[in-house]
Formats: sequence, structure tokens, C-alpha cells
Amino acid sequence: MTIFDEATAVTRIDQGRYAAHPDKRFALVAPGSATPPVINGGVMLATVLRAVLDCSPLPHPVATSAHYLRVAELAPAEIQVTWLKTGRTAATARATLIQDDEPILETTVTTGTVPVSRPARAPLMDGPEISWTGVAPAIPPPGECVNLGEWTGTYDTDGLAGYAGQVSMLLDPAVTGWRFGQPSGTPEMRGYFSLREPRDPDALMLALAVDGLPPVVFGLGATGWAPTVELTMHMRLVPALGPLAVQARCRHVSGGWFDEEAEVWDSAGNLVAQSRQIARVGRGPVRAGATA
Amino acid sequence: MTIFDEATAVTRIDQGRYAAHPDKRFALVAPGSATPPVINGGVMLATVLRAVLDCSPLPHPVATSAHYLRVAELAPAEIQVTWLKTGRTAATARATLIQDDEPILETTVTTGTVPVSRPARAPLMDGPEISWTGVAPAIPPPGECVNLGEWTGTYDTDGLAGYAGQVSMLLDPAVTGWRFGQPSGTPEMRGYFSLREPRDPDALMLALAVDGLPPVVFGLGATGWAPTVELTMHMRLVPALGPLAVQARCRHVSGGWFDEEAEVWDSAGNLVAQSRQIARVGRGPVRAGATA
Repeated sequence: MTIFDEATAVTRIDQGRYAAHPDKRFALVAPGSATPPVINGGVMLATVLRAVLDCSPLPHPVATSAHYLRVAELAPAEIQVTWLKTGRTAATARATLIQDDEPILETTVTTGTVPVSRPARAPLMDGPEISWTGVAPAIPPPGECVNLGEWTGTYDTDGLAGYAGQVSMLLDPAVTGWRFGQPSGTPEMRGYFSLREPRDPDALMLALAVDGLPPVVFGLGATGWAPTVELTMHMRLVPALGPLAVQARCRHVSGGWFDEEAEVWDSAGNLVAQSRQIARVGRGPVRAGATA
Repeated sequence: MTIFDEATAVTRIDQGRYAAHPDKRFALVAPGSATPPVINGGVMLATVLRAVLDCSPLPHPVATSAHYLRVAELAPAEIQVTWLKTGRTAATARATLIQDDEPILETTVTTGTVPVSRPARAPLMDGPEISWTGVAPAIPPPGECVNLGEWTGTYDTDGLAGYAGQVSMLLDPAVTGWRFGQPSGTPEMRGYFSLREPRDPDALMLALAVDGLPPVVFGLGATGWAPTVELTMHMRLVPALGPLAVQARCRHVSGGWFDEEAEVWDSAGNLVAQSRQIARVGRGPVRAGATA
């Protein structure tokens, strides 16, 4: 069992009620900061999905909408799952993560069944159904990418590294100029994303990966934490074993809001998940470029 | 007051409770079909947004996530709005459209404030905030586009035209081959979208426009109604007066699921709304090409 699985574990209390424990090993906080650590949003979303899938009649989270209301703290949490519809093709639940009687993360999840990824260009489905995929992102091979290291927000009280210590990112060098105060001028991120501990990709890891890279607005010179306000993920295929490639772009920034659209491609060369989020442009300390 | 405003009208019953009346003038149904008419999803979403905005502390629906659970029928409906958070930058409500005690449309809406659209290339904001926009879609001028007419699903019982009679679409000729059984092979739609009755664009019209064009999978040869399962819209700017241009693309189709990403650009040349939906590939009668 990996640290990620421990950090996203839930315990069933009653029908539609689960206990969860935000885990400091996935905390985000600037080193030396007096602010209490906050938990990475993707880990919280994966935790909620684990509760939803535990009681879902259908296996895959086809559409997961998440509104981040408040920052999750290092305290016990409860997840409440209410099924609104259970059909043959789709079932929909409302699931809320609660701390101190306040909703922290409000989600709506529609589950269904998606195909299993197969090697690229092989037909994904037999029969007359339409199968089509757009052009895959061009990302240099891992050996030519920049290992981001523990790029920000290391949480090392008690000697434990936080989020940055749990994940591994190899970024296309073209999108890494912000590390040296030379942002590319284009709000894009792309690279390879994995947990440092070996673990096969699944729906929960997709929830982590779609929001796992540094914020795209680092490419425009923004710095600091860029809090997600809303994120919707679509799972398109059950991912093949192996590393995940993530490509993220942005279409518009103004009024302090930016969008970030991510695609996750698996080792078989298939698009396995998509997301779009709207987030606030960060105003934090100019420390985004640190590599340790 | 336009028919669209009448069709999306809500009446406050009590705190957080609104009455709504799905309007057959926005119904979708194949002519001669024995199936009861269903109401266009964008109109239902606009109706829910009207209720949310009526009691929102902030003016604009920045992020609207909608899960379509059941088909809305021509019967009275109630919208229940519950505020989960009311902050200075963002407020979040859960809003459910209910018919016969069953949830039909489950939404979560985060409201906030977005800038007002100004002529393209003028700075959108004063001050040090980042403002950036991606490349605008290339759509031929309206005079070179194909007027789609009442392209499908005319509902003419009582002599009233349904959805297709309320909206006007001028499509880029390159994406209209499906009308003659010659789909382009690419799942894209783009063109100009407006109500036939003159009306200034606002958040409610954006909710209609993001899902207003024919399904992108018509470009791959699919036909018939393609029911939206989940759609999230982001409002990015208050649109300028004038017609809206809509561009929609798809990234992946398999297992009967397809995504559709739409952008809405206003007459000032700014990106005013984005959406992504996941929907089921249609299997309906091959009548999509009809123009009247």
C-alpha cells in the first residue's frame, strides 16, 4: 500500500458516510511559513472519489465536478455521498467533504463504464461504435526533460516531505523558464507525472494528475499558490500501466481568474483523462523557481 | 421581454425555492415522433442560473457545473438553491431542478465578478493584473456562412416551432457536410449563434450558446440527439453587445461517450465563455441533415 493510498483512504461509517483523514504527507506549504499546511486539492478529490466508487453501481468516474469551497485542514473529515440517480449507463452522486460541520469540497460525480486503453491505433471498441482521438501532445522523451525535484511547498515538519516529496515531474524544458525568472510567455505546462512510489495508474491517480503540474500561469510570470475554485475531470479510458504524460494549457486570464485545461495520456498513447479548472492567479512569494 | 426570457422565467416561492415552467417553445422532438417533447438542456440550465443569480451575493456565474440526470418534461418544476459558501471573491450554491419529486438537473454554481468585455487588444484590467487570451477561432464572415435554418427537432404542435425555431445559426461551410451525408471527418462545429428575437447577450444566453450548435460528432457521421450527461461552463467576461461566435471541438470519442469543448467569443473579439461537456453519441434517426 502506497502513501498515496494511505492518504486517500476512507472508512465506511454508515450508508453514504465515510471518514477520511487529510494526510500531512500531501500537505502544501511554503517552508518556514507560519500558515498551517493545506492539503493538495487533487489528493482531496481522490479521497472523495474513493468514497463514491466504494458505493457506486458503475465502475468509473466519467464526470467529476468539484467546487473547492474552503481549504482542507489537517483534521478529521467526513464524506457524505447521496445518490441522485442510478441508471444503466450513468449513475450520479453528490459527495461532500466536510470538516467542522462546514463543506470543504462539494462534488457531483457521474459514474459509468469507459473502455480499457489498448495500444495506440488499435480500435478501442469492436462493433459499429465511433472511436476517434485528437492529436497527441508533443512532449520530449523523459531523458530530455527537466526533473522538477521538490519544486515548491515542501512540508518538512517532523521530517516528512509534503506533496512535492510524493510526486515526480519531468517537464518539457520549453515550459520551465519560470524556474529562473524567465517565464516562456505562454501559459502551458507539459511533462510526465508519477508518484515517487511505484503505483499503477487508476481513476484516483488521474484525479491527482490532472491538477498535478505547476500552474500554467507560471508561464506568464505569476507566482505562488494558485487556488483551484472549480475543476471538472472526465475519465475517458482505464489507463494502461506505466507513466502518465500531462499537457495543460490556458485560454484566458483576466480579473484574477484563469482557466487550465489538462489532458492525461497513458503509456499506450491514449487520452485517458481530461480536466478543466478555473482558479485564482497566485500572488504568493516569488519562490516558485526553487528546486529544493 | 423575449420568448427566451419568458421560457427561463422563475418565480420566487420562498427563500431558496423557485417555480419554473419548462416551455414548449424550446422543446426538442423529431417531427411526427410519438415521444413526448424534451426541453433543450441549455434553456433548463439558463433557468436554473436565473434562480441562482436572483439570490447570489455576487453577480456572475464564474463556474457552473451541471449534471443532467433525467429529461425535463413539459410540467411544472421547482428549483432549490442552497448556498454552501458566500465569500468576498466567490460564493457557491447547489441548485437542483426538480419535477415530480425527482432531481432532473443537478448543478453547482460558483459566482464571482468577471471583467466587462472591451474592444479586442485593449487592456481588460487596469493595474498590475495579468491579462492574456489565446488565439481566436477563424470563422468566415456571416455572409459566407450556411444558415442552418430549423435544422432539427421542430416542435410544431399548436403551430409553435420548438428550439430550432427560436435560435439562428450561421455555420462555417467547412463543418456542414453532415447535412448532405458527407461529414467532414473531424468533430468540430463553428459559427454564429443568436436568438431569432433580438436580445443582448448575458450569462443566461451564454448558457444557451455553449451547447447551442449541433453536436460535434455529426462531423464523424453520428446522427440524432446526443444527450449531455455533464456540462461545465465558465463565464470569463461580461459579453459586449452583438452576435456571439461559437467554436466547438472534441478530443476523444469511445465507448459511446464524447467530449465537446465550446468557446464563445463576443462581437468585441473577446473570449467570454468556455464549456466542456461529456455526452452520449446519438443513435437517432438519420434526419440531422434536414433544413426545414
